[in-house]
Amino acid sequence: MGIARKILLVVLDGVSDRPLDDKTPLQMANKPNLDSIARLGINGIMDPVAPGIRTGSDVAHLALLGYDPYKVYNGRGPLEAAGVGIQLKKGDIAFRCNFATMKDGIIVDRRAGRMRDNSELAKAIQEGVKLDAELIFKRSTGHRAAMVLRGKGLSSNVTSSDPKHEGEPVKSVHAIGPESERTANILNEFIKQSENILENHPINTERKRSGKPPANTILIRGAGTVQKIETFPERYGLKGAVIAATGLIIGIGIRYGLDYIETEGATGGVDSNISAKVKNAINALNDHDFVLLNIKGADESGHDGRIEEKTQFISKIDKAFEPIVGLEDTLVVVTADHSTPIAVRDHSADPVPVMIKGSGIRVDNVRTYDEISAATGGLNRICSMDLMPILMDLIDNTKKFGA
Amino acid sequence: MGIARKILLVVLDGVSDRPLDDKTPLQMANKPNLDSIARLGINGIMDPVAPGIRTGSDVAHLALLGYDPYKVYNGRGPLEAAGVGIQLKKGDIAFRCNFATMKDGIIVDRRAGRMRDNSELAKAIQEGVKLDAELIFKRSTGHRAAMVLRGKGLSSNVTSSDPKHEGEPVKSVHAIGPESERTANILNEFIKQSENILENHPINTERKRSGKPPANTILIRGAGTVQKIETFPERYGLKGAVIAATGLIIGIGIRYGLDYIETEGATGGVDSNISAKVKNAINALNDHDFVLLNIKGADESGHDGRIEEKTQFISKIDKAFEPIVGLEDTLVVVTADHSTPIAVRDHSADPVPVMIKGSGIRVDNVRTYDEISAATGGLNRICSMDLMPILMDLIDNTKKFGA
Repeated sequence: MGIARKILLVVLDGVSDRPLDDKTPLQMANKPNLDSIARLGINGIMDPVAPGIRTGSDVAHLALLGYDPYKVYNGRGPLEAAGVGIQLKKGDIAFRCNFATMKDGIIVDRRAGRMRDNSELAKAIQEGVKLDAELIFKRSTGHRAAMVLRGKGLSSNVTSSDPKHEGEPVKSVHAIGPESERTANILNEFIKQSENILENHPINTERKRSGKPPANTILIRGAGTVQKIETFPERYGLKGAVIAATGLIIGIGIRYGLDYIETEGATGGVDSNISAKVKNAINALNDHDFVLLNIKGADESGHDGRIEEKTQFISKIDKAFEPIVGLEDTLVVVTADHSTPIAVRDHSADPVPVMIKGSGIRVDNVRTYDEISAATGGLNRICSMDLMPILMDLIDNTKKFGA
Repeated sequence: MGIARKILLVVLDGVSDRPLDDKTPLQMANKPNLDSIARLGINGIMDPVAPGIRTGSDVAHLALLGYDPYKVYNGRGPLEAAGVGIQLKKGDIAFRCNFATMKDGIIVDRRAGRMRDNSELAKAIQEGVKLDAELIFKRSTGHRAAMVLRGKGLSSNVTSSDPKHEGEPVKSVHAIGPESERTANILNEFIKQSENILENHPINTERKRSGKPPANTILIRGAGTVQKIETFPERYGLKGAVIAATGLIIGIGIRYGLDYIETEGATGGVDSNISAKVKNAINALNDHDFVLLNIKGADESGHDGRIEEKTQFISKIDKAFEPIVGLEDTLVVVTADHSTPIAVRDHSADPVPVMIKGSGIRVDNVRTYDEISAATGGLNRICSMDLMPILMDLIDNTKKFGA
């Protein structure tokens, strides 16, 4: 028995659930490959961050990478901005934005009809808006965008302009402390100028003509100050890659120093080309020590309360996972970032099943990958933040404390 | 069922392992007595310090005694010095030393041919070296020694003189901060005077004549400042004893206020007289509340990668353990300080199996003592630092928090 030297960390986003009638989607799905990994590995349940803490995907992924989110997490803005390729500098104030539809001062669609592509609108805003600070505004997928304010005397201590529910009036940005009044003013000026640019933009004229809701305002949220962080390669001495479809996870990867490997056909939905992602992940292991592979679809089914879709998506994942079962010299870790129970239609704090397969593993008696079986496994119950230290020890890349 | 009043804590140093082919040495060994304790007790797995933290024996034992090593551990020097019987005072700077062989400024043997006894050389150094601080230099086993500098204005913030690998030049000691420059100078002066004394010492003349590497220099490492600590009796109100063969564990015991009970034939190797140690431990329970019994051999087999030796040594331990199975009115705890997997040839962070037998124990369904079975036991997964509080509660010696 040798020692594995590489790590493939597969995150089945939100796959973890609660029983519906008497079985969870993982228990209902046909998944011979995932079950093989369970049988060949050590299993357990894992609290995202800590028992009873309901986490977002951002916080959950930071913990999976071994970072304490209570220390490093400061809003989703910097992660989303990194995800769209903005080169962040220390002190930048970063935001995530939505293009939205407003009518008579009321938000009638927070996603502007889930518009497909906002590249041209984003470009018009970047070129047209003039502020008392440097502005970087960049499109993301669908109705999403990211924004950075750069300059002296700025602060992320401001409220969001997002009313969070449709049918409510658009909100101004407010300073939470006196140090952020200037930033709030700049952001309100940004909204005003953007709305002027959007109002008569040909794309919106065309949208209105064809009965689509115009993208005529921008909601700002997730404010965060960009701070210096210890990257993943700095922290672990490992060269890492991220394979994911959603901007947030890509952003976390880029922000923490992982190489982003794009996959054609990766959508972040249940229609995603999982086989292509798996293939890319296995290829990436040739010149990386660590690969984070995020597969998002099950989380969306959970949010939407679609039990059959979630179950079928798990079987789809399983079919694509055959090449992973046979991987050698690599620790294969399969887990979720958090639970997204059908019954909750949101994330929950239920622990997630985790399994590790590879050289030196203390194989336990668990025969199948699901929430209930995992709880009887040899890992017992751990926390997400403990996972990376455990993996680092298993690849023999850990310093001794004491002598 | 009454309540046990005493504790026998058996540490099978490094016995914990990973599967080789499909079994660990504990799973392969014939061990009816250890299995009896598992069957009669409660079992679990235990992280030395925390998941993924790879510990030295010193740090691991401090955690087993219930101390937080992040707070109390400050180098191996003070523990080794206590182990050779030096009466430490607060503010002492303590070191561990090796007699080594140097040729033309290069270390050719870091252990001077693993010399058997350095008493006379140590005595010559204690008598001959004159420094600008009080010096205490005392032999330990084999090529090892311990040293203390005592006086005002000293600091342990100095580098080691040990190049760690043979074939490299001997290093000077350097100050890490300005407050330790004087200490570094004293240590370099110590090395110079020692080398002069050793060069022409009759023992080295004789070693050279008979083709053995001369012990002609001294490597200094493990610098630590002696601080006031809360001893084990102060902390728990228990009278304790330590039975061990290695200077480090004896030193930890003495430093933390345990009585050291010497055992004839205890070697720290696989040839050790374990029956004599067990007998001494059981006798010590007559006039002590707590006995720490460390059995070292399996750790050495792990470091050397000798699977059969490790397996056979476990069976040897088991034979000697018959009197322990029948102990009454005593909590019998059997665990390891850390894992020393054959495949790693060093300590690892894998959790160790732990079992507790005695009055009031919630006996579980575990039938045998090994890493895989223990993980299914009633203790689930705990940390070493939690063990002493659990044991204190089981012997009904714990104060209530709240009312």
